[in-house]
Amino acid sequence: MMSPGVLWRDVWDSIANRGLDLLGRRGRAGASSLSSLCLDLLSERGEASGTALAREVAEQYGRLTPRGREAFFLSLLEPEYLADPQAVIAAAEKYRANPNSDTLTALCTVSEPLRQELFRRINLAPGGTEGVVRMREDLLKMLPEYSELRSVDSDLRHLLSSWFNRGFLHIERIDWHTPAIILEKLIEHEAVHEIQGWDDLRRRLAADRRCFAFFHPALPDQPLIFVEVALTRGLPPSIQHLLDGSRETLAPGRADTAVFYSISNCLEGLRGISFGNFLIKQVVAELQAENLGVKSFVTLSPIPGFRAWLNGLTLERKHELVGQEAKVLDAMQASNWYKRPQVEQQVRPLLLRLCTHYLLNERKGDRALDPVTAFHLGNGAAIEQINWLADKSEKGFARSFGLMANYAYRPLQIERNHEAYIKQGRIAVSGRVQSLLEAPAKK
Amino acid sequence: MMSPGVLWRDVWDSIANRGLDLLGRRGRAGASSLSSLCLDLLSERGEASGTALAREVAEQYGRLTPRGREAFFLSLLEPEYLADPQAVIAAAEKYRANPNSDTLTALCTVSEPLRQELFRRINLAPGGTEGVVRMREDLLKMLPEYSELRSVDSDLRHLLSSWFNRGFLHIERIDWHTPAIILEKLIEHEAVHEIQGWDDLRRRLAADRRCFAFFHPALPDQPLIFVEVALTRGLPPSIQHLLDGSRETLAPGRADTAVFYSISNCLEGLRGISFGNFLIKQVVAELQAENLGVKSFVTLSPIPGFRAWLNGLTLERKHELVGQEAKVLDAMQASNWYKRPQVEQQVRPLLLRLCTHYLLNERKGDRALDPVTAFHLGNGAAIEQINWLADKSEKGFARSFGLMANYAYRPLQIERNHEAYIKQGRIAVSGRVQSLLEAPAKK
Amino acid sequence: MMSPGVLWRDVWDSIANRGLDLLGRRGRAGASSLSSLCLDLLSERGEASGTALAREVAEQYGRLTPRGREAFFLSLLEPEYLADPQAVIAAAEKYRANPNSDTLTALCTVSEPLRQELFRRINLAPGGTEGVVRMREDLLKMLPEYSELRSVDSDLRHLLSSWFNRGFLHIERIDWHTPAIILEKLIEHEAVHEIQGWDDLRRRLAADRRCFAFFHPALPDQPLIFVEVALTRGLPPSIQHLLDGSRETLAPGRADTAVFYSISNCLEGLRGISFGNFLIKQVVAELQAENLGVKSFVTLSPIPGFRAWLNGLTLERKHELVGQEAKVLDAMQASNWYKRPQVEQQVRPLLLRLCTHYLLNERKGDRALDPVTAFHLGNGAAIEQINWLADKSEKGFARSFGLMANYAYRPLQIERNHEAYIKQGRIAVSGRVQSLLEAPAKK
Amino acid sequence: MMSPGVLWRDVWDSIANRGLDLLGRRGRAGASSLSSLCLDLLSERGEASGTALAREVAEQYGRLTPRGREAFFLSLLEPEYLADPQAVIAAAEKYRANPNSDTLTALCTVSEPLRQELFRRINLAPGGTEGVVRMREDLLKMLPEYSELRSVDSDLRHLLSSWFNRGFLHIERIDWHTPAIILEKLIEHEAVHEIQGWDDLRRRLAADRRCFAFFHPALPDQPLIFVEVALTRGLPPSIQHLLDGSRETLAPGRADTAVFYSISNCLEGLRGISFGNFLIKQVVAELQAENLGVKSFVTLSPIPGFRAWLNGLTLERKHELVGQEAKVLDAMQASNWYKRPQVEQQVRPLLLRLCTHYLLNERKGDRALDPVTAFHLGNGAAIEQINWLADKSEKGFARSFGLMANYAYRPLQIERNHEAYIKQGRIAVSGRVQSLLEAPAKK
Repeated sequence: MMSPGVLWRDVWDSIANRGLDLLGRRGRAGASSLSSLCLDLLSERGEASGTALAREVAEQYGRLTPRGREAFFLSLLEPEYLADPQAVIAAAEKYRANPNSDTLTALCTVSEPLRQELFRRINLAPGGTEGVVRMREDLLKMLPEYSELRSVDSDLRHLLSSWFNRGFLHIERIDWHTPAIILEKLIEHEAVHEIQGWDDLRRRLAADRRCFAFFHPALPDQPLIFVEVALTRGLPPSIQHLLDGSRETLAPGRADTAVFYSISNCLEGLRGISFGNFLIKQVVAELQAENLGVKSFVTLSPIPGFRAWLNGLTLERKHELVGQEAKVLDAMQASNWYKRPQVEQQVRPLLLRLCTHYLLNERKGDRALDPVTAFHLGNGAAIEQINWLADKSEKGFARSFGLMANYAYRPLQIERNHEAYIKQGRIAVSGRVQSLLEAPAKK
Repeated sequence: MMSPGVLWRDVWDSIANRGLDLLGRRGRAGASSLSSLCLDLLSERGEASGTALAREVAEQYGRLTPRGREAFFLSLLEPEYLADPQAVIAAAEKYRANPNSDTLTALCTVSEPLRQELFRRINLAPGGTEGVVRMREDLLKMLPEYSELRSVDSDLRHLLSSWFNRGFLHIERIDWHTPAIILEKLIEHEAVHEIQGWDDLRRRLAADRRCFAFFHPALPDQPLIFVEVALTRGLPPSIQHLLDGSRETLAPGRADTAVFYSISNCLEGLRGISFGNFLIKQVVAELQAENLGVKSFVTLSPIPGFRAWLNGLTLERKHELVGQEAKVLDAMQASNWYKRPQVEQQVRPLLLRLCTHYLLNERKGDRALDPVTAFHLGNGAAIEQINWLADKSEKGFARSFGLMANYAYRPLQIERNHEAYIKQGRIAVSGRVQSLLEAPAKK
Repeated sequence: MMSPGVLWRDVWDSIANRGLDLLGRRGRAGASSLSSLCLDLLSERGEASGTALAREVAEQYGRLTPRGREAFFLSLLEPEYLADPQAVIAAAEKYRANPNSDTLTALCTVSEPLRQELFRRINLAPGGTEGVVRMREDLLKMLPEYSELRSVDSDLRHLLSSWFNRGFLHIERIDWHTPAIILEKLIEHEAVHEIQGWDDLRRRLAADRRCFAFFHPALPDQPLIFVEVALTRGLPPSIQHLLDGSRETLAPGRADTAVFYSISNCLEGLRGISFGNFLIKQVVAELQAENLGVKSFVTLSPIPGFRAWLNGLTLERKHELVGQEAKVLDAMQASNWYKRPQVEQQVRPLLLRLCTHYLLNERKGDRALDPVTAFHLGNGAAIEQINWLADKSEKGFARSFGLMANYAYRPLQIERNHEAYIKQGRIAVSGRVQSLLEAPAKK
Repeated sequence: MMSPGVLWRDVWDSIANRGLDLLGRRGRAGASSLSSLCLDLLSERGEASGTALAREVAEQYGRLTPRGREAFFLSLLEPEYLADPQAVIAAAEKYRANPNSDTLTALCTVSEPLRQELFRRINLAPGGTEGVVRMREDLLKMLPEYSELRSVDSDLRHLLSSWFNRGFLHIERIDWHTPAIILEKLIEHEAVHEIQGWDDLRRRLAADRRCFAFFHPALPDQPLIFVEVALTRGLPPSIQHLLDGSRETLAPGRADTAVFYSISNCLEGLRGISFGNFLIKQVVAELQAENLGVKSFVTLSPIPGFRAWLNGLTLERKHELVGQEAKVLDAMQASNWYKRPQVEQQVRPLLLRLCTHYLLNERKGDRALDPVTAFHLGNGAAIEQINWLADKSEKGFARSFGLMANYAYRPLQIERNHEAYIKQGRIAVSGRVQSLLEAPAKK
């Protein structure tokens, strides 16, 4: 049977393929006839024929041009998709007079924008859930230009957060027994270290690799987020080492370490609805249950903000941090500086110290400045190690002079780390990393 | 693997079995420690350890006595489960000043009672969705005594309506290949014509029977609602005929009629969240797809309100409706009146006429007075036939003097019927039934 | 979809229900038309239309009366279902002249009775595998009367042994999630301790019970053999204790012992094709993998031949074995002797000694005389314990004065035990049981 | 869980990857220790520990070098894997004296080579069925050099024919939802028109394509044979047209024709055990059940023997068949002759007539000379059409000057066609093709 998700994609893709320009006018005009369909769907007619109407809404939406879709979302700002102002104001009055459970629930009920119910009814269409997610994907692209649509996005995100509650998701292991329709989505969405086609994918699913994804039952062919793990002996020196297609496969029973080297979202329409936190912890539990003898669960993560931060330092701060060695940094303007042993040896201790400082001390409010650091610390992980020349790709140098970080997930410390970080901004860090911070001995 | 649903049930049942009285005190006191767990779950700690906390909340709730559960729900009326009144009032002010999409969404967001988020987080526990449904089942039992809990129920129903959106349900055929854990729930929940154990069930799942249920992916072992269908040649004369265990099985290919003779909900906690409408139409579609040659889709339904209505008539109205024959009705006070041919023949035309009047003309507002009639007409069905002595059970006579109704579902007319009924109160009715309404020829 | 197995059953049952007597003549005459269909199926026509012809053969066979089926099997003794005698004799000559791999394979090939190919082609029908098994079930019933059919049975058993090779079977856990169509077969076929309906079955599938069955992929709804296991703390004192519906359920994690208390075959047509050996060992492995902490795997088994053996002893042997206490045995002729403490105490040591002697020393050739003992010893188990008053059912006293035996399966000793038993007739036995054999101290 | 098939493959591949030369000596010596393991497996020890021994046999075999495997198979010619000659000769004597069912079955039983039982016991290993199939694959490679192994192959083929009886196979639709581990086997084994990687495969599984395969339950990841079908409007002019990646996808509901354009076996070890016949007919039935409106089921097939036959004609026969136009054929020695309109027009009628003659009249015994023609006619198909320039690949011209044939499968005529062909050598052929045979009008 064709899965519902496929249905939507097919409708939309087939449109896309036939050249949207031709549809331009119709696509835009379509928004108004779509809007009247939507009002029907919200009316009592929707009760008798909800599924059929919802399908029609979905199909009409699918046929709209980008401009038509903008028109459609803008129409959702109109009063008929909002609420009865008098009822809202009356309920607000009652609440102000007597703020209690009854008056609050009443106010909340009447002030829910009708478009929330609209999206719930669009969900009746076959493949409707994916449809709503794809709608939000479209909407997110419009926000920079149409900031007035933020309230619509807020409603959609609220609804999708409820539907994609972690309690409804299930985790699945992805391997070479997985259907191709799912595997191709991994190839498409790997965001950290691009997958180079089916052969590369096959190697990433070998016996010493693990891949897990979250799925929602309404989108059976569509992973929401997936994580790639390498089973290794000891920590790998670099990401290139891990991804090397010619490496030998390690017998899983000989591994002592699980390296989480990539985590990617697949649905842009779920941006801001976070599963990564749950997924990593669940995968740690799955790996423990597999009883392979793996003791250590660490990430191998980029440090995306380090170089930009360093470049952005004022001279003063640079001086303060780096001292007289600032000139050393100049050497790194040369390409391939790291291949010259003398330069590399000078730069290394300095850069490790600066990076440690960046990870531990540079904050945005109480949280770590680096977004990846903030993510893992927020999950309760600890900064475990900083790796020199661990990502020799162009991107790796551009982001962080080739440095990468390991964050360790220790199941028994996660909650404590999380609380210390959230409440007091205290960062869990290994002694080894901590010691990098110390000023170098005078020479 | 043990299914999540089983988990909850098991926890709760094991408590129930051990005698709740003993737990009385602890159970009640437990509500306050549970409440502090709930606040934790809502706090930032809940972000790091949501699943573990949610599981603990579920288990503690499961251990509460009925009194303890009341105390727990009452605690949800407290301010810490509501909203920030100042923020609400400020948002309301802004809305009043400028009622638009932005201000409405902002108001709706801040006025959502925090307990909604609490229930969403309880959903993180294994089996959490069933847990929340069972919580509402408990809550519904309290409402008669604690009307102040209605706002909590309103929040819960709103949440469950969103989660149990038809778009998330899937239909399954139930037959003898279905797991026993599901089949026993049919035995337990059949509400219209009780199932007399496993042998009776097996006959109701024979080759000339169909049974379909809706399932939600988070409750894999728990049908939400199911409908029982008999495939027959022509309309069956009575429900007893249909349920007769000794009847011969009809080859399905010889059937021309599908008789929907029972529809039952399985989860009291979903009361007021209606699927029956969708289920019947979906089953009609499934049967059409089965290509058996069935042409006619009708119910065989009780008329639960007829006798009570007749008994409740004032003398005046009775006279008006029945005329001089009122005395005929007296004969029906005798038990077994219908076995006396003379009485039966006198009563029959009169009762059929009265019943037709009851179904067609007696209203509650615009809608039919009889709840079963109102349900099927609201779905777009037509009143097709009224059947004499079609339910000879004690209950059948007590409700409607043994009369039953057939409602016909004709796919092409459903939407038209629905609209005429909803908008103008017009009832779709067959000529045959219509003609029963005519006053009898003078004798 | 209807499973193939159901198809056959349905055809046959529907015939059976309609009264076979009426069909008597036709049923018998049918055997000859069936035989010509079979010859068609064996001919080249069978290559083009094998499936259709096989289905027809199956249906015609299903319609035959018992007499007709006898006639059909007798027809398989005719030359057209055997082989070309000249070819066989020629091949035998060549083999005699030069007995090697070539001549042997050639001889074996030409001497294969054509009816083997017939049964392989009947297997093409939907549900054909079950059909062939049911045919052998019929055949086995005829053997006592028609000993000439033994060669047909030999061919069938050879074929079914190959098809039901352990390598094609898979083990499945049976529990309350199992489809009813399979569960009802457990109720039907439990041969050791009858299952008293669905409620009893449900208790036998509770959390502290395990049930496993072997399935063949061609018979998805039909367990071949199943074993019932109780998880307990220590050895249970009696089978009644185990089966008691009102017992409390033990948390599986608290069990230290797995008691295999029943093993039953479901398909009479597979008689003589043994899976029990494999099943028990596989279940031991499954339970070990479940990691519950169970350390000890024992059976609780009847001793079916003990009382008959004792009764059948000549006076001389009885004297030799029992000595002057023979008179004590007379007391056991009284019913309820075991309820009289004095008798019970006198009888107990004597009976335990005799039973131990029976199990250890009474042989049929090298093998144990008692069939259950012979089965478990042949599997590599050890005699672990003999239990006094462990089966108080009527059957239990009739077979073995209420005694039952535990046989222990210790994975690491199975192979050694098996070899010692098979090659030297040495029986693995616990010290405790061994010591029962010693003559009682003089009083 | 790792599938059994993977297990074997992995063991063997890992050996292969490590360089077999090193193992040369050990691999060969291994054959004798393997042989003693095999004798163990056949002994009573095999009964207690069959699964473990079988696994060891499989692993040891996997580690053998090609030479070692030869030595192993040669050892199966030794007396200990054959039968007891005296018993065979005695049974043959009894049969000769009295050739009946009893004596035949007895003879057949004692003359079965023990190696058949050996292979049945190797089947006990996890993945054993695939192991036995792979063993035969190895054996088939040895036959050209070791013709004495033919008897072993005969035994293996006999066993595998019984195990891979059509009644045990199930058909599966292959599409983009199929696991990658199966899809990659399609890429590997497509024998007719090579699949150019994953993108090409994806197009061959598009909405207007169908692919079906037979599977055996013991080899879940391993298709045995698969067929590729294109849904089209009318017959496609050429195979290149069908395989063109840039073609538009036809809405399946608009198709009226199903074109079977490729059928490939995946397991060399099952050579000579034919499923293609069953598969095509089953796929016709599946497509009919899909209710797409497809009316016509035809192949688009190569004519592999045509050019070789034509080239091989004696001058006399060539003259007889082609007459004075023989010189026309010379034009076809030029490459790209078909691009010159004048040549093409001259050649076309002549070549079509010759090809028709080749298909209809050239025989090997009663059967068609061309192997593809013989296959489809043997299945009951009819020769429907011969297509000019329908395979413009190099291979296409090399085999048949670019000609291809359509064979039509008409369900109602299959049996009749088959019988007429098998019994009388009569070929079903369309009028259109028949008319191609007529001598051209004089010019």
